[in-house]
Amino acid sequence: MAQADFPEPVKSLIAELKRLPGVGPRSAERIAVWLLQSPKADAPALAVALNHAKASIVACPACGFFAVHGSCQLCDDPKRDDLTLCVVEQATDVLPLERCGAFRGRYHCLGGKLSPLDRVAPEDLRIPALLRRIDAAPVALEVILALGADVEGEATANYLAGLLRGRKCRISRIAQGLPAGGGLEHADELTLLRAIQGRRGI
Amino acid sequence: MAQADFPEPVKSLIAELKRLPGVGPRSAERIAVWLLQSPKADAPALAVALNHAKASIVACPACGFFAVHGSCQLCDDPKRDDLTLCVVEQATDVLPLERCGAFRGRYHCLGGKLSPLDRVAPEDLRIPALLRRIDAAPVALEVILALGADVEGEATANYLAGLLRGRKCRISRIAQGLPAGGGLEHADELTLLRAIQGRRGI
Repeated sequence: MAQADFPEPVKSLIAELKRLPGVGPRSAERIAVWLLQSPKADAPALAVALNHAKASIVACPACGFFAVHGSCQLCDDPKRDDLTLCVVEQATDVLPLERCGAFRGRYHCLGGKLSPLDRVAPEDLRIPALLRRIDAAPVALEVILALGADVEGEATANYLAGLLRGRKCRISRIAQGLPAGGGLEHADELTLLRAIQGRRGI
Repeated sequence: MAQADFPEPVKSLIAELKRLPGVGPRSAERIAVWLLQSPKADAPALAVALNHAKASIVACPACGFFAVHGSCQLCDDPKRDDLTLCVVEQATDVLPLERCGAFRGRYHCLGGKLSPLDRVAPEDLRIPALLRRIDAAPVALEVILALGADVEGEATANYLAGLLRGRKCRISRIAQGLPAGGGLEHADELTLLRAIQGRRGI
């Protein structure tokens, strides 16, 4: 006799849940059963939220951040500083920077970072739009490259710095060094090297 | 100025995802962004699977396992052994037992276990249906109590054993002892006590 299994609708739900990042086969099963059985679960509400978000969210045509149709709240905000432009890899990098509270300028999301291994080349990123924004600014912008400290982030930053040099803008890059709360004993050699290279007078 | 945040549809989706078991605020954000941005994601398919599963899955009226309308595949299967009845806590306990391959009888899911702390009393479990199944059987059934080895599982097993004693059935309980692959050095005292108590001649 065939081995018993969940009925087909449960299996389809588990299959869809298993595709989510960070959700393995066990968690997918657990979540599916919870959605079907727990009095606290609201599967239809999740389905509505999925469809609603998928249907209404677009990338802001100016900066690439999440927007409901038209442009995003960050581009729409007249109080932000138009003179500084923070270049990030992903739209998801914007909110962590917002939460740190140190930046109140404009953003530009590249939509990725240069990575030959993942076949991400300059033409796959929103670089022409970045150049247009910089060239169209009435005064010289400060362009802050807030890219990751990994190999691809470094490569992307160097590539952009090369493109921007000679253009009407000042270029800076966010600092690398010890993470807050991290002791020297937990830092790798490269982090310490960057921390020493980036030392500042006090 | 108000701190920037995701647009409302993304926030609603994150809120719904955060309610899933094992999904914290960070994972919920990561999953939501993935669902909206990754070319591999299929948010509408997940929504469809959710609605389809929620609308079509019921508890089998006979045993309590997952069923698509009517009765479940296990109750419907004419090749299974009608003389043994395996009592489990949850519908989700059935498939692990099926996968171990040692049991090919019928199941009865209680829908929980006795737990005064969680206010689960005997009347909250599918115990009357269990008694009816046992009493209605043409011959004496073997009833295997496959309940957990935790305090509530023990209490439920003892309670059921009391109810079933004197009824037309043989009662057994799954063994407790060392888990497969587990060395004695990793076993707690109670596990070792049960393993010694349950020792079998070889």
